[in-house]
Amino acid sequence: MTGERVARRGGGGVVTALGGLLAHHDVTWVASAMSDEDCAVAAERGGSFLEETANGAAYRLRLVVHDKAAYRRFYNVFANPTLWFLQHYLWGLGSAPDFDPGLHEAWSTGYVPVNEAFARATLEELEQAPEAAVMFHDYHLYLAPRLVREARPDVVTSHFIHIPWPEPDYWHALPRELRVAVHEGLLANDVVGFHTDRWRQAFLRAAERLLGARVDGAAVEYRGHTTRVVARPIGVDAEEFGRLRDDPAVLEREAALIEGRPEQLVVRVDRTDPSKNAVRGFRAFALLLERHPELHGRVGMMALLAPSRQDIPEYAEYAAAVETAAQAVNDRFGREDWQPVQLDIADDFFRSVAGYKQFDVLLVNPVFDGLNLVAKEAFLVNEYDGALVLSENAGVHEELGEWALSVNPLDVVGQADALHDALVLEPAERRRRADAIRAHVRAHDIREWIDAQLADLDAVRSA
Amino acid sequence: MTGERVARRGGGGVVTALGGLLAHHDVTWVASAMSDEDCAVAAERGGSFLEETANGAAYRLRLVVHDKAAYRRFYNVFANPTLWFLQHYLWGLGSAPDFDPGLHEAWSTGYVPVNEAFARATLEELEQAPEAAVMFHDYHLYLAPRLVREARPDVVTSHFIHIPWPEPDYWHALPRELRVAVHEGLLANDVVGFHTDRWRQAFLRAAERLLGARVDGAAVEYRGHTTRVVARPIGVDAEEFGRLRDDPAVLEREAALIEGRPEQLVVRVDRTDPSKNAVRGFRAFALLLERHPELHGRVGMMALLAPSRQDIPEYAEYAAAVETAAQAVNDRFGREDWQPVQLDIADDFFRSVAGYKQFDVLLVNPVFDGLNLVAKEAFLVNEYDGALVLSENAGVHEELGEWALSVNPLDVVGQADALHDALVLEPAERRRRADAIRAHVRAHDIREWIDAQLADLDAVRSA
Repeated sequence: MTGERVARRGGGGVVTALGGLLAHHDVTWVASAMSDEDCAVAAERGGSFLEETANGAAYRLRLVVHDKAAYRRFYNVFANPTLWFLQHYLWGLGSAPDFDPGLHEAWSTGYVPVNEAFARATLEELEQAPEAAVMFHDYHLYLAPRLVREARPDVVTSHFIHIPWPEPDYWHALPRELRVAVHEGLLANDVVGFHTDRWRQAFLRAAERLLGARVDGAAVEYRGHTTRVVARPIGVDAEEFGRLRDDPAVLEREAALIEGRPEQLVVRVDRTDPSKNAVRGFRAFALLLERHPELHGRVGMMALLAPSRQDIPEYAEYAAAVETAAQAVNDRFGREDWQPVQLDIADDFFRSVAGYKQFDVLLVNPVFDGLNLVAKEAFLVNEYDGALVLSENAGVHEELGEWALSVNPLDVVGQADALHDALVLEPAERRRRADAIRAHVRAHDIREWIDAQLADLDAVRSA
Repeated sequence: MTGERVARRGGGGVVTALGGLLAHHDVTWVASAMSDEDCAVAAERGGSFLEETANGAAYRLRLVVHDKAAYRRFYNVFANPTLWFLQHYLWGLGSAPDFDPGLHEAWSTGYVPVNEAFARATLEELEQAPEAAVMFHDYHLYLAPRLVREARPDVVTSHFIHIPWPEPDYWHALPRELRVAVHEGLLANDVVGFHTDRWRQAFLRAAERLLGARVDGAAVEYRGHTTRVVARPIGVDAEEFGRLRDDPAVLEREAALIEGRPEQLVVRVDRTDPSKNAVRGFRAFALLLERHPELHGRVGMMALLAPSRQDIPEYAEYAAAVETAAQAVNDRFGREDWQPVQLDIADDFFRSVAGYKQFDVLLVNPVFDGLNLVAKEAFLVNEYDGALVLSENAGVHEELGEWALSVNPLDVVGQADALHDALVLEPAERRRRADAIRAHVRAHDIREWIDAQLADLDAVRSA
């Protein structure tokens, strides 16, 4: 398995998802050495070495050391914001991105060499375990699969993309050579996976249009190699959330959170990422209060946000806009006895779980989102039969849309209306919908997703 | 014919294109009354009345009077920038557009009633000429065809879209009800036309995805009505440009323009519209000068831009950025004997033609563009066997790409390289390419386009 190593539970979904794989299978994790300590360990140990997950499961870890400047260009310039913004439709193409010499260098002396280093490390690990399959993850590693395939033509590989796939025209935000390299890299895999059929279809169209690949159902043929493209929505670990509900750290956060709890609570749990759309969420809440004075003093909005990529200007600017937008609601509607918005920016997963338990309405309104795990996790511990207001552009909408109040994430008025509808939803109807979501999330858990990944790899081997 | 009336030759391509139709066919033009004088004329005359084109051809004109505030919301808020930006991928969806109450009103009390007024006027004109076909044009009138169809189920109509059609996901920039109304409006026509197969395909996919329409080749079936969707790239009037070449007004501009002409001249002719990408053009030219000191004093860039929609903030901001970017090049590289960039912002078509005659390299680098007539017009009068540097996202690239130096419009480095390649292109190769473009433009002129429109309507009647 090749991916970005994160030592503790991060805000993103990928690490969460892969924990289960480490616990139950014989895995070597190939990951970037992030800290100085990581680099020291990597230098001392050489190749891969045994590690343990927080739950005590053993796995092998291979740390890849990068040149610091190259890694910065790779991560902070090319992967974020360039690819992330591109794949969430966050660039207004009239002004950004600008492929000036700096951005070209972020590719050629950042994204390319980091991918090459991952490919080299992967090939070295394959020497130790020649029969191993390789699973690549996410948008940081689009080039590595092709490099591995060229050196080891019969290796079995999959690549899972956790974020949306834009349709072909929007890929023209990258110069031709780069968008071709991205798609060629992915089509060097045997399996490419997405969370939804929507992103899967977009990838198939892009493979056709940008590479001239031949698409036949789920199979893409390109330069004599066939790739199967699948949609495998990720699940969550229901047992883990069962335990978390009564975790002392969660209970402590919850006690603080319910102090002065208003009658009804709208909660959002996100990173301060522009794709998560917190600003429009606050505007919608302000419009709700403007149109419904009867809610003043009785409803609160709690935004529990983890800071995200604050060393990248676009993210720092968005985080500032989030604070301004939250403050504007309180300035306009706040009273001595009631602050309508509570914004809490901190990286604290236990606090998130406390928020999951307490919401009456969960607002998940991303501009675009590969899946969105919050909408699944929160219902496993929620104690109010809460209602879900859900963006039509969140991947999870394909699964949960029928039980949610769907909104267009750009539509501030529509979101204000949906919040109101959610707040006044009949208790029986709230329960019916919450039960259906819970049942779906339990039935399609993280184990199902991991098994599907492995079955896809087995199918390649047996073909 | 239904469309926006423009009394004199505007910067846009639609009016240019339709002049030929007025001259040769029995046409009633249904157009908005723009000026106070228009309104007075409309009030005095009632319905349609006889008018003459500048060339003396007679046609009937029907002026539609709108409430001024409604028209402002229609034109300055909803059509521009909302739809225009959407259809050129100019919105970064993280921050814009925001469907707040104001933007919803621009739709419901602007775009909708103006379309209703056009539909009413069209239906009144159809009373006078019950057998007439109706040709709708462009993005201002997406709703009118359905209203006309509902009142007159067997009317024959076509709708030509002169701008790009985004792929389905990007249409999610509009709330569901609005994007559905846009596509339903168009599918009320018998024929829908685009300049290129690329936009045509995007429309077919959007009809499928957003409406669930049934697509079979070029035919779209929706609610029992079938629409034929075609690609008809527009042409230009070669004879007109033959005359213009020696027009005294053009010669006068040309004399001024060639005073101090450097050895080689890069020319662009555009509106100051963010989609036209003038800022990145200046940056590319600066990079060219940075990398090629041997060009200093020998090459100049002339940007002949018509001011565009300056009462819309997004456009005014972009025009200011254009001036700043041009000035930055001169500040950095200018010498007493040589200013590398000459920026001339004025609405002067004769000056544009003078620029067409003089370029060594024509830069046409739009972010996205429905077609781009400049690339066709300029070669009809150019006297230097000039080379064409052309955006891969201009519709005209489908026709002229093989003879152009293709660039990605976001790639400043790629554009600098292409400008250099164009400046040093061998004279014989320049001539070969310029000849090929001229031959293509002459062979596929405006008459061919008009005939194709009319043939499409005839095919509907005889079916």
